[in-house]
Amino acid sequence: MEHNSSVHSNRRDRAAGSTSARANSRSGRSAEVPDGFMLPLANSSELAVELRIRIARGDWIEGEKLPSVRRMSEETGLHRLTVYKAYNRLKDEGLIESREKSGYYLTVPRRPAETGFGSVQRFRSPEQSDPESSGTESLEVPQPALLGELHSVECRYQFSQALIDPLLLPNSYLSEEAKHVFDLYPRVLGTYAPLQGDEELLNVLRRYMSETCGFVPEGQELLVTSGGQEAIHLTCEALVRPGDAVLIEQPSYSIAIEMFKHRNARLVPVDIHPDGYRMDEIEALMRRHRPVLFYLNPTFHNPTGWCVPAEQRKRLADLAETYNCILVEDDAFRDVYFDAPPPPPVYSYDTAGNTIYIRSFSKYVFPGLRIGCLAARADLMRRLLTAKARSTGGTPLLNQKVFAHQFQSERSRRHLHKLRTALQLRKEAMEKALEGSGWTWHSPQGGLNLWIKLPEGISPQRLLADALGSGSGEETISFVPGSFFDPEGRPDPHIRLSFSMLNERRIAEGVALLRAHAEKQGF
Amino acid sequence: MEHNSSVHSNRRDRAAGSTSARANSRSGRSAEVPDGFMLPLANSSELAVELRIRIARGDWIEGEKLPSVRRMSEETGLHRLTVYKAYNRLKDEGLIESREKSGYYLTVPRRPAETGFGSVQRFRSPEQSDPESSGTESLEVPQPALLGELHSVECRYQFSQALIDPLLLPNSYLSEEAKHVFDLYPRVLGTYAPLQGDEELLNVLRRYMSETCGFVPEGQELLVTSGGQEAIHLTCEALVRPGDAVLIEQPSYSIAIEMFKHRNARLVPVDIHPDGYRMDEIEALMRRHRPVLFYLNPTFHNPTGWCVPAEQRKRLADLAETYNCILVEDDAFRDVYFDAPPPPPVYSYDTAGNTIYIRSFSKYVFPGLRIGCLAARADLMRRLLTAKARSTGGTPLLNQKVFAHQFQSERSRRHLHKLRTALQLRKEAMEKALEGSGWTWHSPQGGLNLWIKLPEGISPQRLLADALGSGSGEETISFVPGSFFDPEGRPDPHIRLSFSMLNERRIAEGVALLRAHAEKQGF
Repeated sequence: MEHNSSVHSNRRDRAAGSTSARANSRSGRSAEVPDGFMLPLANSSELAVELRIRIARGDWIEGEKLPSVRRMSEETGLHRLTVYKAYNRLKDEGLIESREKSGYYLTVPRRPAETGFGSVQRFRSPEQSDPESSGTESLEVPQPALLGELHSVECRYQFSQALIDPLLLPNSYLSEEAKHVFDLYPRVLGTYAPLQGDEELLNVLRRYMSETCGFVPEGQELLVTSGGQEAIHLTCEALVRPGDAVLIEQPSYSIAIEMFKHRNARLVPVDIHPDGYRMDEIEALMRRHRPVLFYLNPTFHNPTGWCVPAEQRKRLADLAETYNCILVEDDAFRDVYFDAPPPPPVYSYDTAGNTIYIRSFSKYVFPGLRIGCLAARADLMRRLLTAKARSTGGTPLLNQKVFAHQFQSERSRRHLHKLRTALQLRKEAMEKALEGSGWTWHSPQGGLNLWIKLPEGISPQRLLADALGSGSGEETISFVPGSFFDPEGRPDPHIRLSFSMLNERRIAEGVALLRAHAEKQGF
Repeated sequence: MEHNSSVHSNRRDRAAGSTSARANSRSGRSAEVPDGFMLPLANSSELAVELRIRIARGDWIEGEKLPSVRRMSEETGLHRLTVYKAYNRLKDEGLIESREKSGYYLTVPRRPAETGFGSVQRFRSPEQSDPESSGTESLEVPQPALLGELHSVECRYQFSQALIDPLLLPNSYLSEEAKHVFDLYPRVLGTYAPLQGDEELLNVLRRYMSETCGFVPEGQELLVTSGGQEAIHLTCEALVRPGDAVLIEQPSYSIAIEMFKHRNARLVPVDIHPDGYRMDEIEALMRRHRPVLFYLNPTFHNPTGWCVPAEQRKRLADLAETYNCILVEDDAFRDVYFDAPPPPPVYSYDTAGNTIYIRSFSKYVFPGLRIGCLAARADLMRRLLTAKARSTGGTPLLNQKVFAHQFQSERSRRHLHKLRTALQLRKEAMEKALEGSGWTWHSPQGGLNLWIKLPEGISPQRLLADALGSGSGEETISFVPGSFFDPEGRPDPHIRLSFSMLNERRIAEGVALLRAHAEKQGF
């Protein structure tokens, strides 16, 4: 197979070369992506990308001469004209300069924050971007739409992504098992999936829910989605019209906030506390605003990790019925508990059919598959199915089959058990590293994050800018400032530190460095 | 692995039993899905589903006694109470009745259109649904939102789905190759994909486009999507506000029509003819309505198969610049040509960056992966990326890797070449079967469909109802009435017959039967 073999040889030839750095810088995940490998360079724009990366990592020093066009042409196998074009592009960008009858020379400083590639530059510290600024709040509060960009910044200590460390997954076992799917379903690549989901997967999910969620979904009550995120999107598309009131926890999942805002919903924040909601507040808001829906994440809530107690769940189902408000229950972290399983979902208390129950699994199994699902009664389901037919259509069959094949296997169950222990250890390591900092949080009983209140005088934005921008890029740290989770985008003294991506030792190192940054702000 | 082995044994034990019928009826694709196999029945609602199917296919005749609760419990391994619940559910539905101290008896007629399961009942012929009706136009014109349901109706002659027959794909080769992906990327299941797409796939797509589309996308100019459909959805989400004018071909892709309508766009139809557009009409519409975008499918247009000539493409790019109208060019059928490749995309003529170029591949390779992409210049891309971050997030990595690994292989290229020939033969078989019918069409030079005008007096809706509802279900035929493709949902004397799903012999049989139905309408 032509393409395949060229990939192979290329991979070998260039294994120690610049290509894997290039792949990594693009995906922003050197820690978790398998070794990147590239096709041979095809054109001047690809060469320009590669040269930017080599400049950024310091292959040449300021003022040094770059290889001649002829030599670069030989090295890359590209036509000289192509190399010439790439050089001229970098020249236009000010990265290199040409000297008559001599060649091309590096003109720029080589610090990552200033080389102008990647998204790092968007997160320069205030000092870098504006020497006149006073510092404290001069950096614009990053907008929630930028959360993805924040996540894609390559940094040494990754506390911003609430995702499972790929090293915690039994990767080779999963891969070997996944291969069987092709033997069991020889036409899996050639077949569209039914809109509602593959029947086998629906059965696996039904059984899973009856075992772990305290309810047994009826035949047509489940819909397979591309991750929990698509399920929220469908809910928003199907139910929210411009101007509708939508209750939403404060703080809440930033992507959900963005979705409802984009539909021009009127967001009405509902406070969540370590012991749950204030039910009288919710009733008053429902009575006053008549919201079309309440988007909630009552189990190991993102970003706080808090859990709403069972009696409030029951009461909420009653309120939803009284005020004809749909409860959109996002339950992404149910399986990631530390000591005891959480209370049953609100959905299981709902006898009137007012709840849409959303499950994501990507947070702890198979993020590369993006399988999620939702449960809803017939009339809501009809609207959600229409929305799915109108957006992406059926979830790819391959992903559904691989998931169905493995999700509830004995090995997967054992893995989940071990995963809980590993995550609890990471949480405890982070809490230990924070001792004596004066930073405060309520220790969560599940989930992937600590929601930490910084002492007065420390700005989460400024801290982020410092942590991302520091020095050589060797000790950069990322986390998410609390304002990302505020439905109204207001400043918030909290930060979210995810403990899922790094091991205990690196958590300890990263937190110590972060504390040092904070201390420079006057502590 | 527990789950896996239970699947295996179950598959063997029940291979000849009712379970595969059940899986098929749910997915509605007995022809192309691999043998369905099911987990053992888990609860009363699953049993009820199974019983409905057995009733539907005639396991018992009207008035016949069903197996006792005890016997059914033994047969299924379910608790008697569970069986009792399932029977009672069917009783509530009127499918069976209980006679005191005797048991349960079948009460209903067993014709598929009347058993009340599946979506077949939605397509009863007028005679069946209303004996008083006069027939001709009494059946409501099916709404475009129902197209998915139409596709899911199981029938013997499938002319409604414009999809590739899975038998035309080299399935086992594809499966074997796909397995390599797990060796090359051992962590592929455990890794989230970057929002814009996997770098390796982006490079494959860049190279593909430079070879076949007449332009070379820049580094950040491509975005991987979950099929072309998601790309249209993102475009709609990112660019259309309520009340905006949107130009759209008449006829057009029904799912796109639905998307724009859902955003409350004002649809302005643009006629398409066998020789393309009337450019003065387009200019007048742009001048008058100042549309935010024009959604077009100029290459082997769906549903007509027509192709817009090169000079009109160039002129269109100019008009878009003049009137500041974004061209959303859906190019799903470019590779499915019969004699000569089509003209370059409009995108390649656009020097001003007003075009979004959407590629689907699911119509002819890997429908089970749902990989598509779009190309757009920087400022449009930024808005599309935001929309993607807000809807499904990154396209699953596994799908991207499998696609990247195989799409441009030598074997895949050879396959595509053979596929074109196979499709051309099917098209010719359909045209031959239509000779002498008095039905008219312009023979397309690519794509998967004939767009046929029925003689006056034949109603496409009535014909569909007859074709889907006929007799025992043995000779059912599906196709899509023209009104599904009308932006305003008006009646249309055309029908779309897809020639891609059946082989030549079955095309001949199905078309002959369809002609016989039409003749009953007075010809």
